[in-house]
Amino acid sequence: MPVTRREFLGAVVAAPAVWRARPQADRMRVDAIALRRRLEALSLFGRPAGGSFTDGVSRVAYSEADVAGRAYVLGEIRAAGLEPRIDAAGNIFARRAGRESSLPPILFGSHIDSVPSGGNFDGDLGSFAALGALETLARANLVTRHPLELVIWSAEEGVAFGRGLAASRIVAGDVAPADMDAVWNGLRRADAIRKIGGDPDRIMTAVRPKGAHHAYFELHIEQGGTLDKDRVAIGVVEGIVSIVRYTATVTGFSNHAGTTPMAERQDALVAASQLTIAVREAVTARPGRQVGTVGQLNVEPNAPNVIPGTVRMTIELRDLSAENLATIAADIRARATAIATQTKTTIEIAELSRNPPALAAPEMQRAIERASASLGLGSTRLPSGAGHDAQMMAQLSPMGMVFVPSIAGISHSPKELTRWEDCANGANVLLAAIIEADAL
Amino acid sequence: MPVTRREFLGAVVAAPAVWRARPQADRMRVDAIALRRRLEALSLFGRPAGGSFTDGVSRVAYSEADVAGRAYVLGEIRAAGLEPRIDAAGNIFARRAGRESSLPPILFGSHIDSVPSGGNFDGDLGSFAALGALETLARANLVTRHPLELVIWSAEEGVAFGRGLAASRIVAGDVAPADMDAVWNGLRRADAIRKIGGDPDRIMTAVRPKGAHHAYFELHIEQGGTLDKDRVAIGVVEGIVSIVRYTATVTGFSNHAGTTPMAERQDALVAASQLTIAVREAVTARPGRQVGTVGQLNVEPNAPNVIPGTVRMTIELRDLSAENLATIAADIRARATAIATQTKTTIEIAELSRNPPALAAPEMQRAIERASASLGLGSTRLPSGAGHDAQMMAQLSPMGMVFVPSIAGISHSPKELTRWEDCANGANVLLAAIIEADAL
Repeated sequence: MPVTRREFLGAVVAAPAVWRARPQADRMRVDAIALRRRLEALSLFGRPAGGSFTDGVSRVAYSEADVAGRAYVLGEIRAAGLEPRIDAAGNIFARRAGRESSLPPILFGSHIDSVPSGGNFDGDLGSFAALGALETLARANLVTRHPLELVIWSAEEGVAFGRGLAASRIVAGDVAPADMDAVWNGLRRADAIRKIGGDPDRIMTAVRPKGAHHAYFELHIEQGGTLDKDRVAIGVVEGIVSIVRYTATVTGFSNHAGTTPMAERQDALVAASQLTIAVREAVTARPGRQVGTVGQLNVEPNAPNVIPGTVRMTIELRDLSAENLATIAADIRARATAIATQTKTTIEIAELSRNPPALAAPEMQRAIERASASLGLGSTRLPSGAGHDAQMMAQLSPMGMVFVPSIAGISHSPKELTRWEDCANGANVLLAAIIEADAL
Repeated sequence: MPVTRREFLGAVVAAPAVWRARPQADRMRVDAIALRRRLEALSLFGRPAGGSFTDGVSRVAYSEADVAGRAYVLGEIRAAGLEPRIDAAGNIFARRAGRESSLPPILFGSHIDSVPSGGNFDGDLGSFAALGALETLARANLVTRHPLELVIWSAEEGVAFGRGLAASRIVAGDVAPADMDAVWNGLRRADAIRKIGGDPDRIMTAVRPKGAHHAYFELHIEQGGTLDKDRVAIGVVEGIVSIVRYTATVTGFSNHAGTTPMAERQDALVAASQLTIAVREAVTARPGRQVGTVGQLNVEPNAPNVIPGTVRMTIELRDLSAENLATIAADIRARATAIATQTKTTIEIAELSRNPPALAAPEMQRAIERASASLGLGSTRLPSGAGHDAQMMAQLSPMGMVFVPSIAGISHSPKELTRWEDCANGANVLLAAIIEADAL
């Protein structure tokens, strides 16, 4: 980890080196101090009792912390001289007029909800960088050709109601009025959306048509360790990987752990263990950046003195290539069949969900590369292994995503940390990319 | 399964063939019809709503069903002309005088509490067979040299308050007054014991000294499949295996399942899966009847999209030879060290509990063999992989245990089933073994 927590906490917010080198460009730089101030202020909403900024945040969508955090963000948008609008799905938008009002807007932003015990950069950075970009343009009296639109997406993390009901998915058109009846933790979806100012009765008005935007941009921390390890300032996202999830149900026979000879056992956990290892083997058996994970595994009856009768587990595969994933899934199924025979169990593998890959538009990747170069920042192309709202927006118009380094690649954890300098770099690249795209 | 459920349910209670062959011996046979009637009557206490005898029973110690079942048993003991007594720990005793009142009694019996969703033979058979043996002696006007004492142990299954607080363990002296403060499901141990007629304030009076009994006998269903598979009527238990339990804590690093390359993962579940397979390999790598089980395994954070950071699992080993178990445990630890290195995790294995083996007395094993032979029943020696109250009683005096076949070896399940003929055989062997031991 190139920066220790101690160094991080003690760090003075210094203007990036590039500012000092090219003072004439300062007026087109996002205010790094305001960016940090806002990230720190927002971290209070959902902060663990007695904790500090680096103790992370629990701001699950629709929670009291989320409602309070959104109120803070709405206040900051108004303070920036913009008029926020909440769509029927609960997403926050703020628009700045362009020179040609008939053109579709350039949309950009991120989200402020978090996973339980998450970090203070995932989503928050992209949200405030978007606001900072609009402020910078206002300060510079620069009016773009296209209208600009900031968005703070609601419920990105998929904690409440599952990822299938993320609010950006609604905007992309993947919604039906009946979805408002979903219940999570005793809360109806409709009531949840009302709680944050949305209008579930008019939910279909949140849907935007294909071509609604000239471009969509999102700045986000990498949530992986590539940029941090390779010391590259900016990641140009090639696309968001396809995510395919399966449930595997291993059925053996639950029996007395003392009286059942080893040869007569049908131990579901022994079979599930072999399958867990087989998933890893199938994923690593071929070259490429694909990943595969058994993240959830539940044993029944789960007692020390009972041979496990049933194991339910998830298998998740991710890659930019859907074909590659299909090949790996077939390999896993073949291995599962052999394991079932050998362990005298049955293994059923069922597809749970499938997100197709969402490719970034080549012209937006190039716009981000030009933006980085203009700021003297190195960049590299890489896939996003994590899902993002950009995935949904790629269905409507050309999408581009900017990554900044996340220390040691940690995210979805209180240990999630991005250097303030990298935060500022990311915000400046976002702004510069918007200006590049405006010229396209 | 040699007998189908349908055949079982339709079976007429027939006297074992040996009765008809030697009618002169009939007066020394336990009443098989009464035995069945009592097993069926007791099954009502804790029977699932709308169920029948073969739908099993949930009569957890200290539950309302347990209290009601005990009241039924007390009534049957009184109906047999005996005066039941409840000791301070809640165990039910009933005594029949011998010719030499200064001799220590022969103690015999079992328990009537069950696991949740257990069967109607585990414990119940040995309890009513003991009562039937006393009735048979009374009917035959046969007075033994030693006093005889029936026991219905309380809380054998270790569900309430754990196995460490089984009431036979108290009688064996493994108790302190402070144990009465234990709490389970909001119930204080002292109140639980009061609920079944015990006296927690005088708990130490339940303790019996070494040499308290001339012998201890217990009839039980095998809870394994050996007798049923080999079609042997009677099992002569060599001893109750040593049970050693460990917890293994596998610590990896929890991280994003999409953004962490396969080569950089420290996946606790991959390591735990290898360890689960290693336990099986270490146990089966050498000859013998030892068994080893990973029965409980919990993953953290246990989400489909998060690489498991921690896995806590149990490892249970059982064998009559403590030395053999030590060798296997050392093998497992060596394998765990290699797995931890290879998976970049740490694996801590801590001993959780250890029951030493409880060997049956050779003279009591021979007494049971002679008893079986005198009834024309085949017998075989075998270890008990399951724990029993006999284990505790072996600490006080010579112990002998009689097993009868359990269909397909199923137990701790509503599917637990023993033929009525085998029930009667077991009761008759118990009685004959008592008479054999009386002559020792």
